[in-house]
Amino acid sequence: MKSETVIASAPAKVILFGEHFVVYGKPAIAVAIDRRVYVKVGIREDRKLYIRSLSLEISGYFQNEKFVLESGKESAEEKFEPIRVVAEKLLEASNKDVGVTIEIDSQIPVAAGLGSSASVAAATATALNHLLNAELSREEIFRVTFEAEKLIHGTPSGIDPAIATYGGAIIYRKDEGFQPINIEFSVPLIVGDTGLERSTGSLVAHVKQIRNAYPEIVNSIFEAGEKIVEKAVQALKEGDLEVLGRLMLINHGLLFAIGVSHEKLDKLVHAALRAGAYGAKLTGAGGGGCMIAIAPSKLVDQVISSIEQAGGTAFSAKINVEGARIEN
Amino acid sequence: MKSETVIASAPAKVILFGEHFVVYGKPAIAVAIDRRVYVKVGIREDRKLYIRSLSLEISGYFQNEKFVLESGKESAEEKFEPIRVVAEKLLEASNKDVGVTIEIDSQIPVAAGLGSSASVAAATATALNHLLNAELSREEIFRVTFEAEKLIHGTPSGIDPAIATYGGAIIYRKDEGFQPINIEFSVPLIVGDTGLERSTGSLVAHVKQIRNAYPEIVNSIFEAGEKIVEKAVQALKEGDLEVLGRLMLINHGLLFAIGVSHEKLDKLVHAALRAGAYGAKLTGAGGGGCMIAIAPSKLVDQVISSIEQAGGTAFSAKINVEGARIEN
Repeated sequence: MKSETVIASAPAKVILFGEHFVVYGKPAIAVAIDRRVYVKVGIREDRKLYIRSLSLEISGYFQNEKFVLESGKESAEEKFEPIRVVAEKLLEASNKDVGVTIEIDSQIPVAAGLGSSASVAAATATALNHLLNAELSREEIFRVTFEAEKLIHGTPSGIDPAIATYGGAIIYRKDEGFQPINIEFSVPLIVGDTGLERSTGSLVAHVKQIRNAYPEIVNSIFEAGEKIVEKAVQALKEGDLEVLGRLMLINHGLLFAIGVSHEKLDKLVHAALRAGAYGAKLTGAGGGGCMIAIAPSKLVDQVISSIEQAGGTAFSAKINVEGARIEN
Repeated sequence: MKSETVIASAPAKVILFGEHFVVYGKPAIAVAIDRRVYVKVGIREDRKLYIRSLSLEISGYFQNEKFVLESGKESAEEKFEPIRVVAEKLLEASNKDVGVTIEIDSQIPVAAGLGSSASVAAATATALNHLLNAELSREEIFRVTFEAEKLIHGTPSGIDPAIATYGGAIIYRKDEGFQPINIEFSVPLIVGDTGLERSTGSLVAHVKQIRNAYPEIVNSIFEAGEKIVEKAVQALKEGDLEVLGRLMLINHGLLFAIGVSHEKLDKLVHAALRAGAYGAKLTGAGGGGCMIAIAPSKLVDQVISSIEQAGGTAFSAKINVEGARIEN
């Protein structure tokens, strides 16, 4: 047994098009971006499953089915539960009876629609896989990450675990699963965070309620969403940023229509447009969280400033980056 | 020949649902609201066609095919041209060779999507019809008003002249014309003005361009718009304000999607929602102009304040009011 530490990372995810509609069988496009979670793991002789999140400022350990809080908020056990599940799967797979230390350092805003929980799970699984010589395939890492996600989101689509594990860009459809999209051009993406945390579950429920009340109207909106994704895949392959921007604006309008935008999201979208972005939209569940914009490369800094002046925090992001990987 | 003066008025119009989509054969709902244009007319012995707009602060006269500006901006001739057309039609119909004075006093914001030009034309035609004993039917007044509108808007739908002339509430479809909607309940409507003038023509052109670029997406959006109108007619008949509000929000999202909203419109929409409105949307061409909201009666004043705090001007409006009529 090695006593070294292993560091692995996994990327954040951005949904470019199709969030919410994806719940109803329509396609969505998701990409990995160059904000990552870093997870450092090491063996412990005391059999504890010790977890520390530097970004959330909480730490504690599981031992004999009990959780002991070391520092931070009382919700730590709930937050750490998916990590515990990942660790136990890996310990089981490696057939080793040891404790582990798991230290999480994240660049990804939490509860903002960027898939940070899946990134934590995928990076943890990847790091432990290496540390414990568990020899899981990437496909198995994906499954473990997906299991952990189910503890957090109930019935997630699997988009977040797929992007966190495999990286790149995918088109996802409920009945057909994932298809990678081959993107050869760079896409200058800006992510703006409203700073408002929101519950994915309640927003999904809100859409369901509107759809039940107005099925015909909402189904036509979903159809428009499907056609946006078809056009967007083509534009991504061709590197046509102007078309991508226009499609984002159309998609944002449809998301407003089904009630998942938010005053602050709309404000940041307009701030991006004012600074010269080709287009912008909310990303993820909406109701707060993040928006994204596409802009000419030379205007990216202006778009970031404009979003920040409008009360958001923003950063530029590369898309189509590598999935979970060992860092050291 | 009488030497009295005659005062007639005509109401402003609000499109509740379906603007822009109506250009592509989809239905729209328009209502008359209790903001009116008042036009006072009298016979003149000097054969001049003298026009004064109290609201625009311009005056001048046509004589022997020439326009003479008396006071105000140089664009007066262009603004008065449709009124001249109305006056000449009425003089022709009455077979009288006299001059007339036409004095316009309007409560309707200009170039804000409330159909003020049609209201001026309908009130002028109605007043002159009475003054000159021209004995035009209401249908003929409508046609004269429509002719005047064509000078301003190129190929208008005829919604504005219909509402200005007949009042009430209508559902309009390009191929089928107007159908009155029988509304028995009162609908507490709020109109908020961004104060931004915009060109209907360029917004219609913008939608055309997006539809040409993305026909399948935009056609699905139009279909959703059509279904909104069907539901809305039912809700208007049933007095279901909550449903009307929700449908407004969906409609606003679709209008955002086709690129005709504006930062300030979205801001006023959110301001209305924050104050407890059931729903809100832009009305008319968009890109500025007005938005409307529906709220519980007891919250109307709060919604108005909220819109004004957000930088708009707002007033509450009764819908479904009388069309062009003689006032004295």
